[in-house]
Amino acid sequence: MDRIQESFNRQGFMKTLGATLETVEKGKIVLKCTYQDILTQQHGYIHGGVLTSLADVACGYAAMTVARADKDILTVEFKINFLRPGNAKQVIAIGEVIQSGKTLTVCSGTVYDEASNKILAKMTATMMQVQNQKIE
Amino acid sequence: MDRIQESFNRQGFMKTLGATLETVEKGKIVLKCTYQDILTQQHGYIHGGVLTSLADVACGYAAMTVARADKDILTVEFKINFLRPGNAKQVIAIGEVIQSGKTLTVCSGTVYDEASNKILAKMTATMMQVQNQKIE
Amino acid sequence: MDRIQESFNRQGFMKTLGATLETVEKGKIVLKCTYQDILTQQHGYIHGGVLTSLADVACGYAAMTVARADKDILTVEFKINFLRPGNAKQVIAIGEVIQSGKTLTVCSGTVYDEASNKILAKMTATMMQVQNQKIE
Amino acid sequence: MDRIQESFNRQGFMKTLGATLETVEKGKIVLKCTYQDILTQQHGYIHGGVLTSLADVACGYAAMTVARADKDILTVEFKINFLRPGNAKQVIAIGEVIQSGKTLTVCSGTVYDEASNKILAKMTATMMQVQNQKIE
Repeated sequence: MDRIQESFNRQGFMKTLGATLETVEKGKIVLKCTYQDILTQQHGYIHGGVLTSLADVACGYAAMTVARADKDILTVEFKINFLRPGNAKQVIAIGEVIQSGKTLTVCSGTVYDEASNKILAKMTATMMQVQNQKIE
Repeated sequence: MDRIQESFNRQGFMKTLGATLETVEKGKIVLKCTYQDILTQQHGYIHGGVLTSLADVACGYAAMTVARADKDILTVEFKINFLRPGNAKQVIAIGEVIQSGKTLTVCSGTVYDEASNKILAKMTATMMQVQNQKIE
Repeated sequence: MDRIQESFNRQGFMKTLGATLETVEKGKIVLKCTYQDILTQQHGYIHGGVLTSLADVACGYAAMTVARADKDILTVEFKINFLRPGNAKQVIAIGEVIQSGKTLTVCSGTVYDEASNKILAKMTATMMQVQNQKIE
Repeated sequence: MDRIQESFNRQGFMKTLGATLETVEKGKIVLKCTYQDILTQQHGYIHGGVLTSLADVACGYAAMTVARADKDILTVEFKINFLRPGNAKQVIAIGEVIQSGKTLTVCSGTVYDEASNKILAKMTATMMQVQNQKIE
């Protein structure tokens, strides 16, 4: 699973968010991210775009854990519902594989407030296995 | 429309992305964002989470342009399809109101590569008018 | 829960599908539907539109189980992923409330093949409580 | 485009809905469907599941118009927003290709009330080209 950590490290945007890769299991990824002023929306909560980015990345790497080693993963699309404002000091994003095929992998993403264990956002994402970084 | 610029300025995360509010019209918002290393995914392109955040914010403020002045806007949910990698120097995010009701506003978001005018991502978002920042 | 059965009975389309209301619990609805030639897509499987309609209705009534008695439920939007073809004699659609607010209820819908217990489709739906059948 | 009409004719469910294939152009499909009691939800309007099925089929065949002749199309997923109740005598469903790749095609679906020309529902769908009816 080193290639997941290595790929994660190459994401400048994850560094910007201060996100860390906590767990890498077959079919499951856990990320963590801590509140910072640079991540806020207009009311001072963690921005929905931050929660979404974390869930997307967790789902993408969850898909990678079940893909062949020579494949890369691209996000085809996702849908996310925001259940509560991002009023949290620390959030946990979990990506889990629901179903994996030869080309597509469907994942579920959940973002929690770590303190209250309440769900802040719920994603369903379609990921695609590709060769050579090409989206087609 | 000053309250939209003012609200936008309060978003620490938009400052982090280097996003600027270009156009505010009734039912339409345009944002701009320039490539930076801090916004990248693992292949050096602009991160899908960045494109998504821009589209979300453009849709949210588009909804605000048709809402009553005492209302705030929350994102209920959105779905986004990624059509091309974020291989761009500058991206334009457009949010447009498709339909507006008393409580909910449905918006369409589109993210372009400014140079090629090609669509990078397409969003449909459901926004909610709320009093006092409460999501219910 | 009689009003749910009664409302379900008024749906001409559910009769057309031959769908039946199997379970009504607080926050959860189960529907059943049996294969018929009139429900097929071009390869003779149960049509994705049928699976979707069942999941939508299960989610809508799940939202109704947690709503006030004078409220009606409208579907704001949903997203559904098709995980397997509808190659089944009997399908089970389950609608469950993920989160319920004063205005909106977010539900999860799952359609199974009853024989194999495999998931055919997975939905996330946003439902709205309304007075007097008005969507706004 | 005969294979589209022929495939459409094989869909028992489209016959059940009384849907007809009105237009087949490269990248665009138009379907029509007339109100019947067997298509209603609890208030006597055309069921959201019917509007959804029409949009799905229109999008699927739109994708087929840009696919190679030996390919079949499967719906990977879609998201639909309901903008107005299906209070219409006749509805028009339009499916249009937004972007087409080697494997995936992204389509936009719109369902109108023919009389008022108002949009009832708006879909974004991801379609997949497959060989031999296999989803993977």
